[in-house]
Amino acid sequence: MTINGVEILLVEDSPEDVELTLRALQKNQVTNHVQVVTDGAEALEYLFGTGKYAHRADRRVPKLVLLDLKLPKVDGLEVLRRCKSEEGTRKIPIVVLTSSKEERDIVESYRLGVNSYIVKPVDFQQFNEAVRQLGLYWLLLNEAPR
Amino acid sequence: MTINGVEILLVEDSPEDVELTLRALQKNQVTNHVQVVTDGAEALEYLFGTGKYAHRADRRVPKLVLLDLKLPKVDGLEVLRRCKSEEGTRKIPIVVLTSSKEERDIVESYRLGVNSYIVKPVDFQQFNEAVRQLGLYWLLLNEAPR
Repeated sequence: MTINGVEILLVEDSPEDVELTLRALQKNQVTNHVQVVTDGAEALEYLFGTGKYAHRADRRVPKLVLLDLKLPKVDGLEVLRRCKSEEGTRKIPIVVLTSSKEERDIVESYRLGVNSYIVKPVDFQQFNEAVRQLGLYWLLLNEAPR
Repeated sequence: MTINGVEILLVEDSPEDVELTLRALQKNQVTNHVQVVTDGAEALEYLFGTGKYAHRADRRVPKLVLLDLKLPKVDGLEVLRRCKSEEGTRKIPIVVLTSSKEERDIVESYRLGVNSYIVKPVDFQQFNEAVRQLGLYWLLLNEAPR
């Protein structure tokens, strides 16, 4: 597994879900390479290199964005829309990881160009296994543009 | 696993790769639900319900399209472009499964809205494992619109 730069941008406002996700990723030795942001506005700043991230040294894009939908300031669908409508960020794989099973959220996410949509399992073990599987899939199997 | 309708549309012109892919999927009990087409024109007919597929009884969309890039008649990138540019087919997850590691193919696929891009492993065991993983990911973990 590549150890350079940020592998995953985790956009999640629930401290419990951040903790659970990091713990599940840790089993695949990628926690050192996860950047956590807790609202949609900061996610956009990170991805577009603006605001507090205007001068970040490592301007490489993450290999994967894990995006919650219900977020403070700017919601997840708007983050998705912004990223997928601009050439420079369109190529970053975005996986929605949410508790919403609403068909309209699923349909709208695909309409906006989401790469994959995963409903957070309520059960702890299943949540753990889902994060493990998606980490392996997107970091090891999937090819993203350099 | 849902047993209704076609789960996977496999667009692949190499008989050897069709055989390998079906065998790897068989381990997850989904071979009965794979539709194989061997060129890009037939893939478009299947997905848009035209030509020889104008009257197919089961008009539901597959849960996953596995798309080779080098195809007779219409190439894979054009199939991808057509599907992702129309509202009705845009929501179908498309995974490019190709031997091409060319950066321009990867970049162009993401630009056109591919959901995921996987380079076929040359080694038989690794190919098998890649297909197993992607089958589990897209058929069991990912949520696609109904």
